[in-house]
Amino acid sequence: MEMKKVTNLVEQALALIDERKFAELHDLIHEENAADINEIIDEVTPEQGVIIYRLLPKELAAEVFVEMDPDMQEFLINAFSDAELKNVLDELYYDDTADIIEEMPANVVKRILKTATPEMRKAVNELLKYPEDSAGSIMTTEFVRLKKNYTVEDSLDLIRKVGIDKETIYTCYVTDDKSRLIGLVTAKDLLLSPLQNMIENIMTDHVISVSTLDDQEQIALMFSKYGFIAMPVVDNENRLVGIITVDDAIDVLQEETEEDFAKMAAVAPTDTDYLKTSPFVFYKARIPWLLLLMLSATFTGMIISNYETSLAALPVLTAFIPMIMDTSGNSGSQTAVTVIRGISLGQIEFRNFFRVVFKEFRVSLLCGLTLFAATVMKLLLIDRILLKNETVSITVALTVGLTIFAATICSKVIASILPQLAKKAGADPAVLSSPLITTIVDALSLLIYFAMATVILHIGA
Amino acid sequence: MEMKKVTNLVEQALALIDERKFAELHDLIHEENAADINEIIDEVTPEQGVIIYRLLPKELAAEVFVEMDPDMQEFLINAFSDAELKNVLDELYYDDTADIIEEMPANVVKRILKTATPEMRKAVNELLKYPEDSAGSIMTTEFVRLKKNYTVEDSLDLIRKVGIDKETIYTCYVTDDKSRLIGLVTAKDLLLSPLQNMIENIMTDHVISVSTLDDQEQIALMFSKYGFIAMPVVDNENRLVGIITVDDAIDVLQEETEEDFAKMAAVAPTDTDYLKTSPFVFYKARIPWLLLLMLSATFTGMIISNYETSLAALPVLTAFIPMIMDTSGNSGSQTAVTVIRGISLGQIEFRNFFRVVFKEFRVSLLCGLTLFAATVMKLLLIDRILLKNETVSITVALTVGLTIFAATICSKVIASILPQLAKKAGADPAVLSSPLITTIVDALSLLIYFAMATVILHIGA
Repeated sequence: MEMKKVTNLVEQALALIDERKFAELHDLIHEENAADINEIIDEVTPEQGVIIYRLLPKELAAEVFVEMDPDMQEFLINAFSDAELKNVLDELYYDDTADIIEEMPANVVKRILKTATPEMRKAVNELLKYPEDSAGSIMTTEFVRLKKNYTVEDSLDLIRKVGIDKETIYTCYVTDDKSRLIGLVTAKDLLLSPLQNMIENIMTDHVISVSTLDDQEQIALMFSKYGFIAMPVVDNENRLVGIITVDDAIDVLQEETEEDFAKMAAVAPTDTDYLKTSPFVFYKARIPWLLLLMLSATFTGMIISNYETSLAALPVLTAFIPMIMDTSGNSGSQTAVTVIRGISLGQIEFRNFFRVVFKEFRVSLLCGLTLFAATVMKLLLIDRILLKNETVSITVALTVGLTIFAATICSKVIASILPQLAKKAGADPAVLSSPLITTIVDALSLLIYFAMATVILHIGA
Repeated sequence: MEMKKVTNLVEQALALIDERKFAELHDLIHEENAADINEIIDEVTPEQGVIIYRLLPKELAAEVFVEMDPDMQEFLINAFSDAELKNVLDELYYDDTADIIEEMPANVVKRILKTATPEMRKAVNELLKYPEDSAGSIMTTEFVRLKKNYTVEDSLDLIRKVGIDKETIYTCYVTDDKSRLIGLVTAKDLLLSPLQNMIENIMTDHVISVSTLDDQEQIALMFSKYGFIAMPVVDNENRLVGIITVDDAIDVLQEETEEDFAKMAAVAPTDTDYLKTSPFVFYKARIPWLLLLMLSATFTGMIISNYETSLAALPVLTAFIPMIMDTSGNSGSQTAVTVIRGISLGQIEFRNFFRVVFKEFRVSLLCGLTLFAATVMKLLLIDRILLKNETVSITVALTVGLTIFAATICSKVIASILPQLAKKAGADPAVLSSPLITTIVDALSLLIYFAMATVILHIGA
């Protein structure tokens, strides 16, 4: 398995560094993949990282540099001579340079912009203007542009001439004399067509494009829907200004997915590798939510305090509080996660609001009825007969069972409504994380419990 | 924005179907994308779906067919004449045919295999042998194979000749006379090199490959790590048997992500669109977990019953049970989700076991201390002073605070250990969903609570 090979590579490289056998290290790594070389650099001191970096051939060095941890990038830039920095910058795509600049402190940014060519400086400044998470912020401005009156041969010649500097040559876009996007031709089309064919005869007119301010997550989902390897980005006047490549789309998908996971676990997202993240960073990501959720438990506490004397009179009711709260919480979080993902994946739109709520209502009826039967049986068979707890009477079992029935329905319905309303209000539906919804339905399920107990068992507040 | 356009397309198409204007419908859709056409078919009756399908040009029809809902595929195959079925099969890639066959009932499979060419039948049977979720099950066997003694010109000629039937021509693999993988050449290399160059001089020797039985999720993560658009699959003897393309890798990433989300919400994964899934399917996916978790709450109930008389003597303790259980549960699920994702993404290996536990221990110390202080302050300031609940004494506040401190540490440590052990035991770490871990730490936090209360407040069981 490949995984093992990479681990071996890292171990071999570390051994060679320890023995200062740099010629052998060069032979070991100079044909390796950028991602694997960065795994080696991650394991060594920054100074050793610089040594490894300097052993790399120019093109590979640039790839390694782009994918490197920002701290190491900064260390490396500070270690570079101006000439070295210029060499690296010349190899970088504009969008990668813009991404790096966003992570660097002001003095490093200044030095990068001073060293860059005027052309790069201009392009990078343009890219930096787009808001975070927009199509503009992840697109590249280096792509092959064809005209409809080119022949296939002209096009292949153009690709041969400029292709080396382009992020992809496999999808080429056709623009008119006002730079407006009018078609696309794949490298496959070009390779399989007679050389004298005109681009306008082989191009696809129907081009799916996104605009510079579109949300990156929506775009990433379009890659997965359509199976593209590149997507054109146009401005308000349908002028082609950039392209997004599939590798960047995959990165966005991964990043957005991890954000959703984090929100559902009620932690702030941390975008670094688990082992590289310090306990303090995790602490800062988690403690605000824990505090918020703890404080919101004040309500459940108040509800219980309110019924303290009744609970003291019929203490068996206390024993079922955890079961009722857990079951409602789980019912709610099942729905919350399902609906939040449905919204994230674009399967649920606001116009389906009632359809979703009604569907969850029907699911909750089925779940509620089953849980009602299971609860009554569990209380009578396990608690009353098996554990010989005679205070668990039939009316107590009915009270708990009906509470679970009603709480399941309320939990699922609320959990289907809140994320949709959050989305409609322009907020991230995942912010209503399942722990938050759990806390809300906890309080509600207790209220239902005491209401049922008051009606059926005649306890008073 | 593109999204709106698709909605319009669906609406326009539906209107034309209603008016039976099929010529106009043909003009509207014959250049659209397969995914969009399937959105139209999803909205109409199966019979209307067949009409739409028959309006499509041959190649697009095959694409639409591949991406279609399995129920609609079955309906369509049953509507096909043998000649029509043969036409479709001729357009399909072997791996797509194998995927379709896996979803069809026996009689349809029989008909497909009878209609297929002997060559396709053989290839499909080979593919069906690989286990689900393995590299073999998602690879395609149609790719361009080059030899090292070809020139660039030979290679381009070969691509022109066979490329039309290949899933990608952008990464071509070089094999020796025993079919062993020895290098790769991209279409970019071919286009940018002089025609007389030899493949062996321009190929990359260092090829990252996976083997047929490797797990599909690990492979999908390699695409995201290396930014590939294709990955070669080799057998035990390093013979090239197939390739995996980036679009399939994205599908795997999506599928595995949704599975992890489902498990974390304690529901069985359902792989269809939210709105298309019936309430009964959701019920079946959710009720087993709800029942299991409800039954496991028997333990919390038993613990509380055991301390019933103490609680009756000091009823204020009951009011803090939800806060203690929720906080422990949330602390545990924060860690569980973080560690489970770390394992899924390959960031956490079993050799890091103690590093992970120790990191979570330190995080839990920081969180526990903060929560201790917040709890004591909250109980004294809000419950005692603001809500004038005089039974909340300083010792009660200390008891609750110390319980939360200890429960936070235990929850996070346990939640960091269990998923790692599950993975080591060969189980899916996400099966220890956060609700399950919550249920475990619920019971534990109650035991800690009553132990603290016994020591500090001298309550007896």
